[in-house]
Parts: sequence; C-alpha cells; structure tokens
Amino acid sequence: MTTVQLDFTISLDGFMTGPNVSVKHPMGEGGLRLHEWILTDQMSDADARISREAATSVGAVIIGRRMFEVGVGVWDDTPFPVPTFVMTHEPREPLVMTSGTFTFVNEGIESALQQASAVAGEKHVRLMSGTVAQQCLNAGLVDEIHVQIAPVLLGCGRRLFDELRTAQVELERTAVIESPRVTHLHFRVVKPA
Amino acid sequence: MTTVQLDFTISLDGFMTGPNVSVKHPMGEGGLRLHEWILTDQMSDADARISREAATSVGAVIIGRRMFEVGVGVWDDTPFPVPTFVMTHEPREPLVMTSGTFTFVNEGIESALQQASAVAGEKHVRLMSGTVAQQCLNAGLVDEIHVQIAPVLLGCGRRLFDELRTAQVELERTAVIESPRVTHLHFRVVKPA
Repeated sequence: MTTVQLDFTISLDGFMTGPNVSVKHPMGEGGLRLHEWILTDQMSDADARISREAATSVGAVIIGRRMFEVGVGVWDDTPFPVPTFVMTHEPREPLVMTSGTFTFVNEGIESALQQASAVAGEKHVRLMSGTVAQQCLNAGLVDEIHVQIAPVLLGCGRRLFDELRTAQVELERTAVIESPRVTHLHFRVVKPA
Repeated sequence: MTTVQLDFTISLDGFMTGPNVSVKHPMGEGGLRLHEWILTDQMSDADARISREAATSVGAVIIGRRMFEVGVGVWDDTPFPVPTFVMTHEPREPLVMTSGTFTFVNEGIESALQQASAVAGEKHVRLMSGTVAQQCLNAGLVDEIHVQIAPVLLGCGRRLFDELRTAQVELERTAVIESPRVTHLHFRVVKPA
C-alpha cells in the first residue's frame, strides 16, 4: 500500500518559501535560507542519512503547475528520478526527461494520486507543492508529514500549512532528529476511526 | 541582564489558539487540545521538569489587554506569581491579586519592557500574548523563543508568528526535548552585529 507523504523544510514561522516565487527566485526572495542545510558542503551525517532515505523511498511525485514552471529549469530533469505528476488545468502531452517523465493531470487530485500510487507501488507518493499538500490534507489523503524546521523566522512568503478547510487533524509524532542546521520532525496522520 | 522570552504551545501549523477566543473559550474553540500536555494528570517527567524550570525562571510577565480580560477569570490571580504588565490604551489603576499585581501600561511596549525588566532582575520577562510577542519580535526585543509543538493541525485560529514587518530573524537552536505529548524547541535570537 502506497504512503502519501509531505516532506518540506519550513521556517519556525511556517514558511516554505520566501515571498515572490519566480523563475529567478524559485524559493522566493530570501527563501534559499531554508535549504542551507541541504545545500551545504558539510551536511551532517544525520541530514545526509535522512535525505538519502527520503530520496530512495520516493516512488512517485505530485507537484503543482507553478512548481513545474519554476522548477523544471532548476532540476533540468524530474525533481526525483521517478514518475512525476503535474496538476494542470489544461491537457498537455507527457514530457520525457532524463530520469523520469512529467505527466500532466487535469482531472483533479484524486486522479493524480491514483496514477501516482499505481506506479509508486510500495514506495511513497511525495507531495511537493504547497497547493497539492493543502488539497490532500483537506481531503484526508495524507498519511505522513515530514518537516525540517530551519532556525529562522522568514516573516513572509508562502506557508506550508495555510488555513485548512477540514476539522483538526490529529498527528502521532514518529521521530525527532536533531541535526546542527535543522530539526527533523516526522508525524503520522491519525485517521478518524 | 533580563532575558525577554516567548514561551508558547503551538500546533504544527503554527496556531497558539483556536478560532473565536472568548471568556467562554479562553484558548479559542478547540484550542484546549494544545494544552493537553500540561493539563493531563500524567505529565511526563520531561514536561514537568521543563514547566517547573520555566515557571521559576519568570520574573515578570507582559500580556495584552485581551488576554487579561479573557484570562483573569481563569487564573483568578496573575498568570505567574510575579508582577504582570498589561498593555492597554486607557490608563487604569493597578489591580492587586493574591500573588502578584497587574500594572496597566499605556505608553507602549518599550515602556512595559523597561518596567518589567526593572522588577525581573536576573529572571526572565515572559511575553504571554501573541500581539505583544509580535510587537517585540518586530522591534528586535526578543532574546529567546521557546515553543512546544503539539502533534495536531488546528487548521484555524490565531498564529503565534504572523507576518513580521521586520527582516528575517536568525535563530540558534539551543535545545530539543522530546516528550510523549509535545516537542520542546528552544531558540536564541541571533542579534544583528
């Protein structure tokens, strides 16, 4: 059974990008601060292990159209070497990259999740866009939440967790991993009985 | 030298209360979920130790007028047994309670901090209201941030960290304490050189 997972680095005040995300500033203005822990040459052992585990556990990715447009030039490939589904409003032919293919889905998030789960098999479906994450949280479709909290207050930008349209979501914390540049917190979503 | 400290329990999505804070719901609707860790009969050893340390380190408290109005009936005293300063727009005589006095300050946050620091001595000045916390963060007056992250997404309510009007605030993480019901994260604010 596929697990649907969010995995984001956020500031202590909850921002996953700085303001004004663009091709020039894919993480928003000042947002690269969040990813210092992963961009550094001296990644800690814990960070390296967690990044490696996370990367090898991803079986498929879902992103929004905006992340596709902003990110494709940065990655010059799919973000992970796995099938990647892009939520769009307009039909578009698949885009084959070196290590994966972008498939454009315009029938809503359930369809994207179904297609992603089918190819992910026992691995995770990773939700990489904030909008996609929000939609799935609201629809009760997320199984696991991984956040890396960077020690900074960004002050503005885009939040990972915006206001939800659903009731409170109970979580079970499954791991706390302290590393020099971030704090890793892992949660399992407790589904209503 | 007094240390100015924020200490709040927040949900993973950053809310410090649920929506519609009132005398009937001092933590907002559904907001008591955040304080389960401290309201339980089976508080963990780590939680008990941290709460005790936090309580004994408080030398003075600053709150907003709204928290005063909502909280005074709940506490039936000052929130901690120390001098408590209430930010108001209108002058008002001090209100003597059993273990502390509420002093009403209408000359702005710097004046409140000055008065609170004078009585706190070597202990902390604790900022207990979101509005006061925001004002002090924006003015660069906060030294330490303690958050307890409850494993829940509240979805709506009042955020501890709303949009700041200041530049990015760099933090240094000073402690991570894992306990069954919350995750304690302590930070020092890195002041610009």
